[in-house]
Amino acid sequence: MAYFSKHYHNPGTEPGTLVAKSDLGRPVTIHLIDYTEDHLEEVRLANAADCREYLERESKTWIQVNGQADPETLRNLGDLFDLHDLALEDVLNTGQRPKLELYDDQLFIIAAMPFYNGDKLDIVQISLFIGKNYLICLCPLDEDPFEPVRKRMRLANNRRFVTRDIDYLLYALLDLVTDSGFPVLEQFGYQLEEMETDLLENPNQRTLARIHGLKRELLVLRRVLWPQRELLTGLMRTEDPLIHANTQVYFRDCHDHSVQIIELLESFREMATSMLDIYLSSISQRTNETMRVLTIIATIFIPLTFVAGVYGMNFQNPDSPWAMPELGWYFGYPMAWGVMIAIAAGLLWFFKRRGWM
Amino acid sequence: MAYFSKHYHNPGTEPGTLVAKSDLGRPVTIHLIDYTEDHLEEVRLANAADCREYLERESKTWIQVNGQADPETLRNLGDLFDLHDLALEDVLNTGQRPKLELYDDQLFIIAAMPFYNGDKLDIVQISLFIGKNYLICLCPLDEDPFEPVRKRMRLANNRRFVTRDIDYLLYALLDLVTDSGFPVLEQFGYQLEEMETDLLENPNQRTLARIHGLKRELLVLRRVLWPQRELLTGLMRTEDPLIHANTQVYFRDCHDHSVQIIELLESFREMATSMLDIYLSSISQRTNETMRVLTIIATIFIPLTFVAGVYGMNFQNPDSPWAMPELGWYFGYPMAWGVMIAIAAGLLWFFKRRGWM
Amino acid sequence: MAYFSKHYHNPGTEPGTLVAKSDLGRPVTIHLIDYTEDHLEEVRLANAADCREYLERESKTWIQVNGQADPETLRNLGDLFDLHDLALEDVLNTGQRPKLELYDDQLFIIAAMPFYNGDKLDIVQISLFIGKNYLICLCPLDEDPFEPVRKRMRLANNRRFVTRDIDYLLYALLDLVTDSGFPVLEQFGYQLEEMETDLLENPNQRTLARIHGLKRELLVLRRVLWPQRELLTGLMRTEDPLIHANTQVYFRDCHDHSVQIIELLESFREMATSMLDIYLSSISQRTNETMRVLTIIATIFIPLTFVAGVYGMNFQNPDSPWAMPELGWYFGYPMAWGVMIAIAAGLLWFFKRRGWM
Amino acid sequence: MAYFSKHYHNPGTEPGTLVAKSDLGRPVTIHLIDYTEDHLEEVRLANAADCREYLERESKTWIQVNGQADPETLRNLGDLFDLHDLALEDVLNTGQRPKLELYDDQLFIIAAMPFYNGDKLDIVQISLFIGKNYLICLCPLDEDPFEPVRKRMRLANNRRFVTRDIDYLLYALLDLVTDSGFPVLEQFGYQLEEMETDLLENPNQRTLARIHGLKRELLVLRRVLWPQRELLTGLMRTEDPLIHANTQVYFRDCHDHSVQIIELLESFREMATSMLDIYLSSISQRTNETMRVLTIIATIFIPLTFVAGVYGMNFQNPDSPWAMPELGWYFGYPMAWGVMIAIAAGLLWFFKRRGWM
Amino acid sequence: MAYFSKHYHNPGTEPGTLVAKSDLGRPVTIHLIDYTEDHLEEVRLANAADCREYLERESKTWIQVNGQADPETLRNLGDLFDLHDLALEDVLNTGQRPKLELYDDQLFIIAAMPFYNGDKLDIVQISLFIGKNYLICLCPLDEDPFEPVRKRMRLANNRRFVTRDIDYLLYALLDLVTDSGFPVLEQFGYQLEEMETDLLENPNQRTLARIHGLKRELLVLRRVLWPQRELLTGLMRTEDPLIHANTQVYFRDCHDHSVQIIELLESFREMATSMLDIYLSSISQRTNETMRVLTIIATIFIPLTFVAGVYGMNFQNPDSPWAMPELGWYFGYPMAWGVMIAIAAGLLWFFKRRGWM
Repeated sequence: MAYFSKHYHNPGTEPGTLVAKSDLGRPVTIHLIDYTEDHLEEVRLANAADCREYLERESKTWIQVNGQADPETLRNLGDLFDLHDLALEDVLNTGQRPKLELYDDQLFIIAAMPFYNGDKLDIVQISLFIGKNYLICLCPLDEDPFEPVRKRMRLANNRRFVTRDIDYLLYALLDLVTDSGFPVLEQFGYQLEEMETDLLENPNQRTLARIHGLKRELLVLRRVLWPQRELLTGLMRTEDPLIHANTQVYFRDCHDHSVQIIELLESFREMATSMLDIYLSSISQRTNETMRVLTIIATIFIPLTFVAGVYGMNFQNPDSPWAMPELGWYFGYPMAWGVMIAIAAGLLWFFKRRGWM
Repeated sequence: MAYFSKHYHNPGTEPGTLVAKSDLGRPVTIHLIDYTEDHLEEVRLANAADCREYLERESKTWIQVNGQADPETLRNLGDLFDLHDLALEDVLNTGQRPKLELYDDQLFIIAAMPFYNGDKLDIVQISLFIGKNYLICLCPLDEDPFEPVRKRMRLANNRRFVTRDIDYLLYALLDLVTDSGFPVLEQFGYQLEEMETDLLENPNQRTLARIHGLKRELLVLRRVLWPQRELLTGLMRTEDPLIHANTQVYFRDCHDHSVQIIELLESFREMATSMLDIYLSSISQRTNETMRVLTIIATIFIPLTFVAGVYGMNFQNPDSPWAMPELGWYFGYPMAWGVMIAIAAGLLWFFKRRGWM
Repeated sequence: MAYFSKHYHNPGTEPGTLVAKSDLGRPVTIHLIDYTEDHLEEVRLANAADCREYLERESKTWIQVNGQADPETLRNLGDLFDLHDLALEDVLNTGQRPKLELYDDQLFIIAAMPFYNGDKLDIVQISLFIGKNYLICLCPLDEDPFEPVRKRMRLANNRRFVTRDIDYLLYALLDLVTDSGFPVLEQFGYQLEEMETDLLENPNQRTLARIHGLKRELLVLRRVLWPQRELLTGLMRTEDPLIHANTQVYFRDCHDHSVQIIELLESFREMATSMLDIYLSSISQRTNETMRVLTIIATIFIPLTFVAGVYGMNFQNPDSPWAMPELGWYFGYPMAWGVMIAIAAGLLWFFKRRGWM
Repeated sequence: MAYFSKHYHNPGTEPGTLVAKSDLGRPVTIHLIDYTEDHLEEVRLANAADCREYLERESKTWIQVNGQADPETLRNLGDLFDLHDLALEDVLNTGQRPKLELYDDQLFIIAAMPFYNGDKLDIVQISLFIGKNYLICLCPLDEDPFEPVRKRMRLANNRRFVTRDIDYLLYALLDLVTDSGFPVLEQFGYQLEEMETDLLENPNQRTLARIHGLKRELLVLRRVLWPQRELLTGLMRTEDPLIHANTQVYFRDCHDHSVQIIELLESFREMATSMLDIYLSSISQRTNETMRVLTIIATIFIPLTFVAGVYGMNFQNPDSPWAMPELGWYFGYPMAWGVMIAIAAGLLWFFKRRGWM
Repeated sequence: MAYFSKHYHNPGTEPGTLVAKSDLGRPVTIHLIDYTEDHLEEVRLANAADCREYLERESKTWIQVNGQADPETLRNLGDLFDLHDLALEDVLNTGQRPKLELYDDQLFIIAAMPFYNGDKLDIVQISLFIGKNYLICLCPLDEDPFEPVRKRMRLANNRRFVTRDIDYLLYALLDLVTDSGFPVLEQFGYQLEEMETDLLENPNQRTLARIHGLKRELLVLRRVLWPQRELLTGLMRTEDPLIHANTQVYFRDCHDHSVQIIELLESFREMATSMLDIYLSSISQRTNETMRVLTIIATIFIPLTFVAGVYGMNFQNPDSPWAMPELGWYFGYPMAWGVMIAIAAGLLWFFKRRGWM
């Protein structure tokens, strides 16, 4: 459903209820990276409960959970990392608006990553929990969008990740999420350009449907990008000890991108609205042109046909000099043509003067 | 009446006046739950005055009054719980905007619960008074919308309600009220989708009426949801001792839902407005197509009819070589057809080139 | 004049100039109520200067001046109560925007009371001066709109007025002024509903004029209601000693009404704008339907008429087998009908398929 | 040029550059009033440098410079009164936005005075410098708009000016400038009313051009009035020692007028926009009516003409009973009329039922 | 591409990555001015690393880098002046939004300079780094837009630059960048005026495309001018020691210009939007006029043609008095003309009364 895509429990349900969705796909995959300045260890876990051993180490741990989260996994994670019931409910009921929640020694972040799935805009909810030395990232997609970050981490000479705290990893993930807006808007830009050409050259119902669809997608995107910006503002300004001052420079950069994406989006929205007006004007213009052709042809021939009709009448009274004497004149027929040509010429001159031809 | 549904006293009436409405339906039903950590007692009261005995106990008491409140009941409650005259007037004159009033040792809350009554949006005013160990909830509907909360309370293992203060009960009720927005918006979403299909495939006057009706409902809903959000912000931030810090996490969640509902609503409004433009464009497009058919047919046949008309003229002068000699030519008739076919072909070519066919 | 109804002095006039308007109607009537906890005295004064004796008493005094104020009366009041020149000018030049001015030991308030005068919206400027124990209220109408308040005061058992300070009287008057908005908006609501029906069923130029007129009235009303809300916010929050904390609860109620009126007004404005779009769409829809009828009829008969025209031609050459041999065929005439019926049927089928019939 | 009327130096020019404009008209006239409580002296100066002697006196001095300022005069004034280069540049490059600049012991004010020059809106930039005991006012018009203020000053009994400081004179001038908005808006109001009548009764291209022109003028006016309001807010609230508290009451009055003018302007803008919609609707309505007349006439006569055409065919085969036997029937002709009348009546009934007649 | 012109790295790229663009044009040119109160030295450097020697001097140094910056140059500058990685990335990825970043002892500024490149709006990103005694300005254009500033510096008597700190140079550059908006808006103003004339006199599809293009350019311009204003506000208010109080007067002037440009732009946008409405109205008006001509001609001649058609029928039964006896009447033919003239006159009278002629 295009307009309403939020999952919600029935009103009156106990807060923090975790119910498995009926359309659960493949089981989640858990990818864990544990790293210190000296080593980096990557493992795939079968079960969320297996994170426990890494939790007790001093090292930093990134737990990436891909795929539709099931209540079981969430409850396990919740118990291990002491996650709030309401937060877990938000992870399960995807379609939440981006936000930043400050818990006592934990941050809970919901971000929204837009991408083009074929020729359709999709927005995926990324849920992040960050504590002193762990970061849990849950993404309902089956394939992991954060592979580029993992690649950078694996580079032996990349000291940024290992020398900095876990908040730099948070930045790296959110930066990727934010920048995902650029290719999406680029795509929108291409579409706007195509529509614009269509509009002025060959407006039709399909163009209209496309503009409308684009407007809807822009609205959907906008609904998540504004709170995402607030989230980044929050991270940029927070005094929470989990976010260090020297990482905030990076969040500021990320925030700048977010602002720029929103500004582009807003101007795209305005152009899309303006295109609806142009569509209407183009159609009216075409109707006007069609009308003009009809009017010229009809207006010229209708009087001529009338003249021809007159001399097609059958008045005949041999005794009457009034019974269509023209029909018997020597130059009757050429005269009729003369009248008709004069009428046509006069009308053509009239249309020329009006600027219709 | 669709546009103005507020009850009000004549200007100049004494503040706090309680006048029975003429259309009083069934008498109110009073449902009381009294609970401590150890027990939970449910009774149905015949009269508001019977609450007195529970008021004096240490236990927490939830008094649910369903049905159109009569002045008598309100006055009784007012005397018992020391409710402000203006608050009681607001309870009686339903259609108030949601608000939070802080009295000395009492909160007065007006909330608005939207729901679909058949295929019509209805908004019911929920009035709440909360004191140290009581909560009074008045709902003008005959059937109790808060039954799901009561069910949760009755569950023996549900410690949340009994171990927490009365503000958690307030949260549970307001959460239900807020979340009622989701099914309503889902309904709106379905309607928008239907209209969209109609618009692009078969726009007609009925679609127009539906869009207009939807816009009106969105406006009505919006009028109550914005102040409702403010009310939740107030509860989330208040330092009133009746609302505890650990309940405010829950109000924050409730507030988040409220914001999300409003954002959806605003984008629905925008889409509805955009649909009006699309309707207009679709109609113009259809007019244009109709015009084009007319123009093609008329423009082709009018000149042909003229030619036929010409040779239907009766010029006859046996002496004149100018009296329609074509009529007597050997190939006169085929020639006339030739002229007509040439004209038709020329016009068809012209329309093709214009892209009209 | 509908668009500009403000009275103003020529630019460059001395501030505080009081000039009698040319269209002065009946002389003002002055109605004075003097009351303490023990007594209530009502008198009608011939002259503003007669207030002096009441001014010196301890009792509270309400001076109500009805009718177009003349410079003489204003100057008398100004001298007696030490009113500021600029304030008096504002009283005289009606059409001011509502405001609250805090002078040293006096408040000056301008409020706007909307009401329906026949079927036309009228807005009357109420000017109020309030001091320690007096309230002066000036209303340019000949009949006193505050009679309901006076009635309440006269009730022997109404202790509210007499036990409270003069600010409660101020509240009572402003409450009446504010609540006057409800019947006006109810009236607007009825009109919108009527227009809506008209629009969808029978849109015409008169409907257009009505929508336009309503929009103008909504704008005029809006122009006074927003500052009126600010005025009430001011009173609700002021720390001026003339307004007591326990009266501010009442001003808060009044402010709530004001906000609700404004919100209704704004949604009415939006609906009125939306109606203009619907009007346009309806007209286009009708044009489209008219066009379709014309197109169907014309498109069917124009080719038929052509066929008839062809067989009305007079080609005659007894020697030529090409001279309209059809005319002499045995089944020529039925064949012509056959051709015509086939054309008509084909076109009808075409229109059906297009969904035009 | 209607859209861009700002004077500016080429980008990269030295700040504070004073270049004579090419279209310098008449030389400036300098009118000086020097006054204390006891005397008032008026002189006309040939040269700006002649102000020096008055500068040294204790008395208050008002220097009014009318006409297009030349660089020479500005430099003289600048040297004498120690005016900032950037301020002088702003005086020369008229078309600045209104503003208040606080220098150390000087205020620099740019205000905008709208007026109707014939039937065209004109906005003139008034530049004011105010110091401890002098006020310099520069107005590029040749005739002095501040004559009314001067008249008031000359009145022997007008103690306001002489007993107060120079800031009261500033108020008097700005009050005149602000109030100039009222007659302009009154003029706009008249025009709106005229257009409204035109729109609903006889919409044509000229009305459209007028609405468009009015919108442009409203936008131009708006562009200066908003910053002018800010300027007055600044004066009303400033703690600069040059503006005394008892004059600020007057600036508050002036600010009120400014707000009222802006609110009127905004509602005029909204009405002008609404008029464009109404224009479009009126045109569509007229097209619809035209169409309906055409459709009725054409739809009635086209089938009739077809019937007439049928019986104008020349099928003749003496041997065939199928060769238009109707033509030979006794009641053939009346029957043809009967068919035609029946068709016409049926169509008329159809149109009536559709509500088209 | 008109809608999306931002350069960006793929999401997930390491922050601070500097990758050479594929379309690198000519190598950069570096123009260095080193000046104190006593001397001014200008050199062209081959390589960014050559700046080192000037860096160590006490004198102020302006390093102007023109042309598309290559990663090599940026890295050199970055090492020399200790520039932040993210800043360098922003310099490379042009199309950033204007901003002011405060680093420890450095300011990083991105500004946007609009100009007309032929008849197309272009916006070039100016990047500025300012430290205690150096200013680095990077401009991707091949030719240096700041030549006018350099000229002013070279003037022997121009003491402003040499006696003031490097922030005055910053002002001079930003002033030029800001004021570049004026010629651009002047150009827009001319175009609006042309379009307006077109619209009212001869609206066509080309006008529509122009309005649409202008709107897009206005949106693009707006997207950079709003943050540019914020940047100037930042400089005007900053307490950073690099910006001195006496230079802030100049930034205030610059900020004023920026505000004025934005206000003009916003009113241009509004006029452009209004023009779309006018276009639509004009087209509708023309359609209406075309329709009226068609309707008049068709409505007059269609009934006449019908009459002619009637008397062209061939009813013939010598025995029947009903077989078109009119054809044999003595005055039959004149009577037919009489009927036709009466019909035409009646219709003309009808059209006159309707105001259609």
